[in-house]
Amino acid sequence: MREWDESTVTEEVVRRFEAAPPRLRQVMTALTRHLHAFAREVTLTEAEWMAAIEFLTRTGQACSDTRQEFILLSDTLGLSTLVDALNHRAAPGATRSTVLGPFFVQAAPAAENGARIDAGRDAQPLLVEAAIQDTAGRPIAGATVDVWHADSEGFYDVQRDGGGLSHRARFTSDAEGRIRFWTDMPVSYPVPDDGPVGDMLKATARHPWRPAHVHFMIAAPGHERLVTHIFVAGDPYLDSDVVFAVKDALIGDFAAMPAGVARDGRAMDRPYRLLDYTFGLQPAAR
Amino acid sequence: MREWDESTVTEEVVRRFEAAPPRLRQVMTALTRHLHAFAREVTLTEAEWMAAIEFLTRTGQACSDTRQEFILLSDTLGLSTLVDALNHRAAPGATRSTVLGPFFVQAAPAAENGARIDAGRDAQPLLVEAAIQDTAGRPIAGATVDVWHADSEGFYDVQRDGGGLSHRARFTSDAEGRIRFWTDMPVSYPVPDDGPVGDMLKATARHPWRPAHVHFMIAAPGHERLVTHIFVAGDPYLDSDVVFAVKDALIGDFAAMPAGVARDGRAMDRPYRLLDYTFGLQPAAR
Repeated sequence: MREWDESTVTEEVVRRFEAAPPRLRQVMTALTRHLHAFAREVTLTEAEWMAAIEFLTRTGQACSDTRQEFILLSDTLGLSTLVDALNHRAAPGATRSTVLGPFFVQAAPAAENGARIDAGRDAQPLLVEAAIQDTAGRPIAGATVDVWHADSEGFYDVQRDGGGLSHRARFTSDAEGRIRFWTDMPVSYPVPDDGPVGDMLKATARHPWRPAHVHFMIAAPGHERLVTHIFVAGDPYLDSDVVFAVKDALIGDFAAMPAGVARDGRAMDRPYRLLDYTFGLQPAAR
Repeated sequence: MREWDESTVTEEVVRRFEAAPPRLRQVMTALTRHLHAFAREVTLTEAEWMAAIEFLTRTGQACSDTRQEFILLSDTLGLSTLVDALNHRAAPGATRSTVLGPFFVQAAPAAENGARIDAGRDAQPLLVEAAIQDTAGRPIAGATVDVWHADSEGFYDVQRDGGGLSHRARFTSDAEGRIRFWTDMPVSYPVPDDGPVGDMLKATARHPWRPAHVHFMIAAPGHERLVTHIFVAGDPYLDSDVVFAVKDALIGDFAAMPAGVARDGRAMDRPYRLLDYTFGLQPAAR
């Protein structure tokens, strides 16, 4: 008899995926079983199903060249951290990875070591010096290092109307495996909460805040690409990051430095902060 | 120590939903656990995660006033049939429900019983007569009956550019609990497969076809709203409906009738088909 009910429809859907390529069949089978198990477990109502349809539709329509609301949803549901953990197990000497986040939306042009990448607002200056090395501690020259972070008001460049590129650049490590740049101090900020993900956070009584951090994506031939953040020690949101990305090993000491001649020779007429961090890249898989 | 890994992040996300209203907390907790269990079961790769982000984004962006790609996705994953089954258990004498589908996108204006609702193409005429009754077999007068179906080329009105309303109307049952209208025969048709859902079906070697049917949505005070289809007996896709909606009890005999005076007095100069179906509505819950 033809009639799929709550106890038979799942295996019928799974059967329809039988002719799919093996890995896709495996993924769609597991997706179907877990999606259906969720609906059965909570006895999803039709009104809730329709609310979910509308939520997902709005989430897709909130996406643009400069906003990725589905990545933000994945981040706030902990899925991004889970996928990162499943795919990256740091070897001894290697820096821990964390989530990409929704704001790596455009490649930045190459910048020279020592460049200033902030927008020149009157914010606290920050000198970042980073060493890139392999798990044996040998410097990696020529590594490509993308950096991006929120400005002193908590916004990424792509969130500002027509503001152009800032707080975002691509450096190449020098012969000693080092990069350096000037910027301004990132601050803790709420993820964009004027869209569907913000509605979900409000409805579930969750705050939208992330602790201050700088994003790094580091690639070098023969090594696994590293996607990570360095967080600012002491930030009040380190224990409740809305996207579950904090790891103790990724908290940096953004040291308070007096006015004077900085390490790179720049004469600073006011105090600044210094982040000196060493990144370890592990060998590429296989 | 701060660091969420694949074995700890799930319960941390669940903990963040602790302050949500009870039902929302229950739904988000179950959603998180099943979503994470899916990713762990298949060891979802970062490339697959990104493909999923892009798929969902495109699905949202394919939605418009006249297209609901997320409902189509839910339908083709069997979720709509599951939610329907979880929420509707037909009492004896009640007609089985089935999925709403993605094409009930606008309310139709009221039409008089006996009206013709097709677009006047040269297709096979169909007379639909339907009786609306309660589970004891008593006629229900004044029931609101929305009907919609694909035309003889397999398209709904909203899929045609600027074509206006057709094959879609709202009737009210008369004192004997009956409605009647003229239209043309629906045909089996592929669901829209020029978007992300079509890509999913192609990638998994699934066909996009639905057996021919007419949609009915029937509402009457004191009764549970009925959302269903009546399928055309003999259709080659009855056993493989891409949206899992077929039930034997919903297959109608669209009888071949000779030219002549039809039941409603209309003089037909060529053969036509007749669907005479009795719908049973169950009492409203509580």
